[in-house]
Amino acid sequence: MKIDINCDLGEGFGRYDFGLDSELMKYISSANIACGFHAGDPSTMAKTVQLALKQGVKIGAHPGYPDLQGFGRRSMDILPEDLKNMIIYQVAALKGFVEAHGGRLNHVKPHGALYNMASRDKASATAIVEAVKLIDGDLIIYGPPKSELDEVSKEIGIRFHAEAFADRAYRADGQLVSRDKEGALIHDVDTCAKRIEKLLEEESMDTIEGDLIEMKAQTICVHGDNEKALHFVQALNKKLHDLGYGVE
Amino acid sequence: MKIDINCDLGEGFGRYDFGLDSELMKYISSANIACGFHAGDPSTMAKTVQLALKQGVKIGAHPGYPDLQGFGRRSMDILPEDLKNMIIYQVAALKGFVEAHGGRLNHVKPHGALYNMASRDKASATAIVEAVKLIDGDLIIYGPPKSELDEVSKEIGIRFHAEAFADRAYRADGQLVSRDKEGALIHDVDTCAKRIEKLLEEESMDTIEGDLIEMKAQTICVHGDNEKALHFVQALNKKLHDLGYGVE
Amino acid sequence: MKIDINCDLGEGFGRYDFGLDSELMKYISSANIACGFHAGDPSTMAKTVQLALKQGVKIGAHPGYPDLQGFGRRSMDILPEDLKNMIIYQVAALKGFVEAHGGRLNHVKPHGALYNMASRDKASATAIVEAVKLIDGDLIIYGPPKSELDEVSKEIGIRFHAEAFADRAYRADGQLVSRDKEGALIHDVDTCAKRIEKLLEEESMDTIEGDLIEMKAQTICVHGDNEKALHFVQALNKKLHDLGYGVE
Amino acid sequence: MKIDINCDLGEGFGRYDFGLDSELMKYISSANIACGFHAGDPSTMAKTVQLALKQGVKIGAHPGYPDLQGFGRRSMDILPEDLKNMIIYQVAALKGFVEAHGGRLNHVKPHGALYNMASRDKASATAIVEAVKLIDGDLIIYGPPKSELDEVSKEIGIRFHAEAFADRAYRADGQLVSRDKEGALIHDVDTCAKRIEKLLEEESMDTIEGDLIEMKAQTICVHGDNEKALHFVQALNKKLHDLGYGVE
Repeated sequence: MKIDINCDLGEGFGRYDFGLDSELMKYISSANIACGFHAGDPSTMAKTVQLALKQGVKIGAHPGYPDLQGFGRRSMDILPEDLKNMIIYQVAALKGFVEAHGGRLNHVKPHGALYNMASRDKASATAIVEAVKLIDGDLIIYGPPKSELDEVSKEIGIRFHAEAFADRAYRADGQLVSRDKEGALIHDVDTCAKRIEKLLEEESMDTIEGDLIEMKAQTICVHGDNEKALHFVQALNKKLHDLGYGVE
Repeated sequence: MKIDINCDLGEGFGRYDFGLDSELMKYISSANIACGFHAGDPSTMAKTVQLALKQGVKIGAHPGYPDLQGFGRRSMDILPEDLKNMIIYQVAALKGFVEAHGGRLNHVKPHGALYNMASRDKASATAIVEAVKLIDGDLIIYGPPKSELDEVSKEIGIRFHAEAFADRAYRADGQLVSRDKEGALIHDVDTCAKRIEKLLEEESMDTIEGDLIEMKAQTICVHGDNEKALHFVQALNKKLHDLGYGVE
Repeated sequence: MKIDINCDLGEGFGRYDFGLDSELMKYISSANIACGFHAGDPSTMAKTVQLALKQGVKIGAHPGYPDLQGFGRRSMDILPEDLKNMIIYQVAALKGFVEAHGGRLNHVKPHGALYNMASRDKASATAIVEAVKLIDGDLIIYGPPKSELDEVSKEIGIRFHAEAFADRAYRADGQLVSRDKEGALIHDVDTCAKRIEKLLEEESMDTIEGDLIEMKAQTICVHGDNEKALHFVQALNKKLHDLGYGVE
Repeated sequence: MKIDINCDLGEGFGRYDFGLDSELMKYISSANIACGFHAGDPSTMAKTVQLALKQGVKIGAHPGYPDLQGFGRRSMDILPEDLKNMIIYQVAALKGFVEAHGGRLNHVKPHGALYNMASRDKASATAIVEAVKLIDGDLIIYGPPKSELDEVSKEIGIRFHAEAFADRAYRADGQLVSRDKEGALIHDVDTCAKRIEKLLEEESMDTIEGDLIEMKAQTICVHGDNEKALHFVQALNKKLHDLGYGVE
């Protein structure tokens, strides 16, 4: 039994550090690496790619909107054709670093506001999937389950891995509980590990309302921008191992 | 008998057009396409790559310093390791567009201040050649004859094509006559064509001092940012054909 | 009788020219100068400000979204507090050039997608008006009549000048006819001049449906990004003079 | 007896924090605030300006080269006229925030590679001083003693405050000992405070070679990008108070 844990990495820029990349790498199996638009610069990309290769972590491109100041978290009204080309640009650039250092790009996961947009806007989802197909039809797209991105990937014929959030509560409609609501974040590692176990074994997820919903996920997303987050990932990794899962 | 004519293209940005790309494509054999740092954005890159593929023009990446405001014409004091990663980023991004549209990247030619820096600064030249080698050892580097870039390409084992300027006068030491000097620019197409013929047949070039110097070049660089330049390229192409050369 | 004609200027960037600024300056009375976010760089700003001062044209700041690649025409989901600070930054920077060269800033007109957003989104309109008030309470805001920007300016106590478009058709609800509809653009200078005369004399505007609507405008917006546009402005200026209006 | 202690602040960008601004503000008397080119964005500028005003700290603009990725630490070959306009743009933008919040801009200190360039290159120094004069002839320029910036300020008639570094060793020629040399950094607070006392009382500075050199400084520069630096500044402030100096 094995499970993929993915995390956004390489999100510094120039003089600015961000996140605890080298530590985190030890406890995850997939790294989503920023490509220079919302974060990341060429040298940060090179360094993060090499770190991932050294740790045997799968590498994904993590493209975002062209908005460093907003860290890609502000939605932008971009024409699908332009968006498609922005994805090709970013993914190809990261793929260049991966191959330059002897690796192979595994997946693509859109970042921040683009991730949200691609969940509900078909044109944006299509732009992303078409870009990925043009680059390499064997790439996997990571994204939210039952989203437009999921749908369009199936239509166009690109593999899609649904991701669940280890530490976020879900509503009965399958959406995440908004961060400003009580109970939105789950801090207890045991609880998180049990939720993941149930997700993997029974394809179901507890909701904040108390009911179970059906959910399938092929990858679990964790965060790592501070010490506390790192310890959470570390503990979760151990717990999953104890439950008999290999993080790989 | 054949000769390669190269030209910088795809140097617009967003709403800003630059150069007469679609017309120029008909009269050249190699397009050096901007990669987003000194000029060019993803959609401009996609459009220019498709134009080149349609016309059967060879495609090169044209990376520059990260300075859109200065159009890559201001030298920047960048660490070799950072420069190498900037080259990987830009060349890989352009390569992505070329391959997405079914083509193959042919060469890399540094732009503006980076071109000049790579001519005389060994560390910069090395950064460029190492980046190119990491991406694809079959790529060709276009640059000035007898430059550091030429030397380092030989040392590292990357093919190098020296370029001569069709419309610029040379000094006896093999350097270009500075643009602000009288006689720096050669406006007569017949004279230019004859200079190229001599370069190809006899491996020699007339200098502004009147002497002949030895010069070998595998490609001829032309410019195309205005109507007059376009007409010059058109006439030069015709003249070379009349002399029995195929531009390819 | 006099009328203010305003035009967006200084929208080049670095090596990229845009618009026919020096010619246009002769036929308008207000210049809205780009401030470096959607277009314009420090030297372009300095040059355009000096040109306006020389021609006795009133100077306005023309701030936009931070999106050079999209020329400020893509809406961005920016927090009001951040937007307010972006406006302060841009307007203060332009005001610096105006005062450095001995002039006085007259007005502020938001650009592109920000202009549209400020027409209908109260939070964005408020961010703009508050920023303007913090910089100089005597500045005038130029914007669409009966918009949120108009409303909020009145509430906060900043002067507002409604603008009408000389060459665009209006609907019965007071909105512009979308550019992709037939009849959206009015090409005949006589017709345009007559519409402006009616607007000024009778405070009414013809609509595409044929009815007259009430409209008050203190300034007329023209465009100038090509030769044809320049000739239109030139002819309109002459026609208005013939009708007895001073453009000032 | 009083002494001015200045520190670079507001050097975060968007999501990226940098330095311990709110703590540092308590122990310094002048804040040099980044203006958006090498670091700083509008909201960071607004926040930092308000923090300084609240603490009664004098505010200076800290303009740099347009190079966020390099944090303004890479020299760029910029034409003096363009550099002058970049300084006007940045200083005017920061001045806008200061005045919007009821304060008054006190000084201008160039950042990083621009600081170094302005020390030795007369054209760059002149561009900076002319820009400052155009904005407000009462502003003070902070910079290295006996530099081109010092000279040109005197020539043009702008007040200049020479700065000494509290924790850096000097050579007999008045230059800083390079950071990679042993003894370049002085870690002991007592030693630093004594050096400053000698500087203020006797206008002299110990050198690494052991001799005293003449040095006049009106302001002392400290750094604050980590916990250790903060503690140093805190201790230095206390020590100077103990010696009878007011930091103001």
